[in-house]
Amino acid sequence: MPEPLPEPADEPSTASPTDEFARIEVALAHVAADLEERGILAGGEAQDVLNAQALMAADPTIAEDIQARLSNGKSADRAVFEAFAGFRDLLVQMGGYMAERATDLDDVSQRTIARLRGVPAPGVPESATPFILVAHDLAPADTALLDLEKVIGLITREGGPTSHTAILARSKSIPAIVGVAGAEDLADGTIVVLDAANGTVDTEPSEAELAEVRGAIAERADAAAAPLTPGALADGTLIPLLANLGSADQAAEAVALGAEGVGLFRTEFLFLDATEAPSVETQVAEYERMLRAFVGKKVVVRVLDAGADKPLSFLNDEKEENPALGLRGIRALRSSERILRDQLTALAIAEARVNRYGSDSAAGGDAAAARDAKVEVWVMAPMVADLDDTEYFVSLARELGVRVAGVMAEVPSLAVLADQVFDVADFVSIGTNDLTQYTLAADRLLGSVAHLQDPWHPAVLRLVGMIGRAGRDAAKPVGVCGEAAADPLLAVVLVGLGVTTLSMTPAALADVRGELARHTLAEAQELARAAVNATSAAAARQAVTRLAAANAVG
Amino acid sequence: MPEPLPEPADEPSTASPTDEFARIEVALAHVAADLEERGILAGGEAQDVLNAQALMAADPTIAEDIQARLSNGKSADRAVFEAFAGFRDLLVQMGGYMAERATDLDDVSQRTIARLRGVPAPGVPESATPFILVAHDLAPADTALLDLEKVIGLITREGGPTSHTAILARSKSIPAIVGVAGAEDLADGTIVVLDAANGTVDTEPSEAELAEVRGAIAERADAAAAPLTPGALADGTLIPLLANLGSADQAAEAVALGAEGVGLFRTEFLFLDATEAPSVETQVAEYERMLRAFVGKKVVVRVLDAGADKPLSFLNDEKEENPALGLRGIRALRSSERILRDQLTALAIAEARVNRYGSDSAAGGDAAAARDAKVEVWVMAPMVADLDDTEYFVSLARELGVRVAGVMAEVPSLAVLADQVFDVADFVSIGTNDLTQYTLAADRLLGSVAHLQDPWHPAVLRLVGMIGRAGRDAAKPVGVCGEAAADPLLAVVLVGLGVTTLSMTPAALADVRGELARHTLAEAQELARAAVNATSAAAARQAVTRLAAANAVG
Repeated sequence: MPEPLPEPADEPSTASPTDEFARIEVALAHVAADLEERGILAGGEAQDVLNAQALMAADPTIAEDIQARLSNGKSADRAVFEAFAGFRDLLVQMGGYMAERATDLDDVSQRTIARLRGVPAPGVPESATPFILVAHDLAPADTALLDLEKVIGLITREGGPTSHTAILARSKSIPAIVGVAGAEDLADGTIVVLDAANGTVDTEPSEAELAEVRGAIAERADAAAAPLTPGALADGTLIPLLANLGSADQAAEAVALGAEGVGLFRTEFLFLDATEAPSVETQVAEYERMLRAFVGKKVVVRVLDAGADKPLSFLNDEKEENPALGLRGIRALRSSERILRDQLTALAIAEARVNRYGSDSAAGGDAAAARDAKVEVWVMAPMVADLDDTEYFVSLARELGVRVAGVMAEVPSLAVLADQVFDVADFVSIGTNDLTQYTLAADRLLGSVAHLQDPWHPAVLRLVGMIGRAGRDAAKPVGVCGEAAADPLLAVVLVGLGVTTLSMTPAALADVRGELARHTLAEAQELARAAVNATSAAAARQAVTRLAAANAVG
Repeated sequence: MPEPLPEPADEPSTASPTDEFARIEVALAHVAADLEERGILAGGEAQDVLNAQALMAADPTIAEDIQARLSNGKSADRAVFEAFAGFRDLLVQMGGYMAERATDLDDVSQRTIARLRGVPAPGVPESATPFILVAHDLAPADTALLDLEKVIGLITREGGPTSHTAILARSKSIPAIVGVAGAEDLADGTIVVLDAANGTVDTEPSEAELAEVRGAIAERADAAAAPLTPGALADGTLIPLLANLGSADQAAEAVALGAEGVGLFRTEFLFLDATEAPSVETQVAEYERMLRAFVGKKVVVRVLDAGADKPLSFLNDEKEENPALGLRGIRALRSSERILRDQLTALAIAEARVNRYGSDSAAGGDAAAARDAKVEVWVMAPMVADLDDTEYFVSLARELGVRVAGVMAEVPSLAVLADQVFDVADFVSIGTNDLTQYTLAADRLLGSVAHLQDPWHPAVLRLVGMIGRAGRDAAKPVGVCGEAAADPLLAVVLVGLGVTTLSMTPAALADVRGELARHTLAEAQELARAAVNATSAAAARQAVTRLAAANAVG
């Protein structure tokens, strides 16, 4: 169990304030860079959290405060400790929207002090074999980068569903139970059955229970080891299974796990360290690298999704009281059109370059080979609200040479107006995380309203159904690229609601492929009807689980 | 044009720091109390803004900072000026969600300095005749309490659509144009035609133009002076017109303007100054006072609508990054059920007391007279998301003796699930402001996304239509109590979508009554169809305006 560092003693410093401050500046810069790097590796929500932490390490007010304390004779460790603690108290006292970050600030303080001392920051222990990690609490930076080969479960003594840690564990699909009172009494090496779905920890499983659990695990492993066939229902209806990627580095793994293309390529990584947008040439190089991994396949690229809640100050540095309801996504891009133009231009160039080389290598006029050697770039815009946003984005994409342009359905209005949107968009891709957040008016990162953040909620599923119907009427594709697509049974429901492709974290592909193969389209539609007529997320999940089991028997 | 106070000179103080601080404490307390009082008088969004300002005046960190500056020999004025300016700079520099409040902080500083000097705070000039106010900028505290008898329009040199001032002016329906470059050149007494709808200021209107404008104004006055008949369509369909009230003090005016009851009685005023919830007896007394003004009518009471974005720390003091998507409304009440139980109990008692006296005075078994002497209390809960929230609230209300219980439709999920909700709720009342905010995922107080905050948006109207259909199928009332109900033509569209009662600020009753009387139900439904099939808010407004004009001719 990783323990926090002890509080630095308040003893007079033996070094000069100038030398100490120089050491601290280096330490802070390292901590900021480390957090950003972890963010880039982790992607998604984790990246937002970690970038906010990196900004704290780079805060000039804190640096000045540290300098003042050094001048008063404090040691480096102590000055850092006191400055962060003071800032933390100020945040808590001020109230307002900054205060939520106080606990994350503690972690920055710990990391900086650890670096000054030359000791590792409190973190995840090493182990040769896979294990369930038991901890007091875990920093977001550690949770985000947990080695999923080694850490197969997580139990913490502290933390509620509200902690960033719990939220990130959910987003990584690590079975996790937080706030377990007796966790510290668990001895290393104890055999534990962790059932996150039911919120139970069994520390004395019987042989029979262990056998049952091992059977379930083996069944899952078999599914993962099954041959990589295209995603399809039992009746042969093809449902292409795509990958969500946060950088080109993840492409090879996705292909190895059977991704039939990319359903969501996030492009924020290109912008995160920058004080201005990257050049077209820089972008072309990155896009080319990624597209080459998917020759013969489709890659759906989401243009920059940024706003006041994401640290891209050149795009929107206005202070917003509710950044999730602010100038983000396509709204921010419309007010900084140059950035969008450059990105679409770079994507068009990258596609052309990859396909030119591709068609060169596919010799002798073999049309199928030529097609197989080409990558197909689709672009989509986040936070599109209505036809006006859609027309803006699609016409700009076409003008700049990207042939296939669609929109994400995250804002409820888009679902309600899907019939109008399909007149213009080539496809719609549903971001179930944000769609759930807005439909239920419940912040997806806020634990106190977590019970409303369930993509099984019938309200969300009914909106998905509206988009599905509109897509079918328009004979255009409807994708899902939110977390919902990675839940095997929910994936079947989504297909029953009219969704034609599913995109997910590559680790989930095998489970979803296996579940789809167990149901016909008619069955999926039956499950979907049960789900939208249920009166709660729990009831929907239960009704669908029961029906699916009955179908499997029948 | 009100000018800001000059910056206090940085001269040494002649009084003792202790005496000066005592003066400052009194001044700050007065400013805080004044802002809170203005908030209570103004109600609604203005109250949120002004309460946040009052908290700034009471901030202990600022008080400490002032004290330190006094100890260094600063004068009282100067110490206040510097402390607020320093805090302001810190907020701006820190970024984050607090920085938006920097400009409001300047106003608190000005008010405090003015009080120390014994001069009035910069504010609205007095005038014997109605006038268009031209100002550099206007503080929210002034905008919120503009005397609508005197100030008939507002032009400011500073400010964009994002300023609290502009937003509050909109919410008070004052024709206002902000950010007008040459505004300071307008001489007192200039005759100005202000057309807020088209964003134009005409400083040299011709006689013909003046005659036209005066004709339009006279027409409006005639409608306001028309006899107080019940709200009804041209074909006789009754559409009760109700009032939105923020305190019992506003009841008499609402009745005088022809309110047929209360469609939204906000109860936050009872809780705002408190550090804990008011007792049942305190509440009963207030409710009784209000209910007596509406004997023979219906009063729909909204239970406490509070959350992290509203300063009721005993209900939810958690810091939230997106308070509009947080633990507010029924969600906060579910986690503090005692408060909700007390409020429902107090309402049941107040209703019983009023009606007991009422039936006593209606002598001799005259059933109609007895009914006319009774008030009917309906309760509704804000931020209800689904059937689970509905069942919770309705069963608690019944248990505690309130017979009619419904829910507000503000969260999009409620509209999508309205068929399920009507199985349990006695009625649904649509809060179009929040419903628009969530449906379009656009903060209603944020100027940069103001173009999405339009209740004419077809997405919002389609959701209203879903609720209207569900209400008709269940044969239960559907009300609207958001700003949309006060827009006469939009009110007709809402009725066409199935809305059965409209509740609004009392000042809007005459215009809406007049417009309803010009359309049959079939015409309203025709307008509604045009609106939901339009592809933007502007297109919907235009299509409906054109059709309504054609119907008037035909």
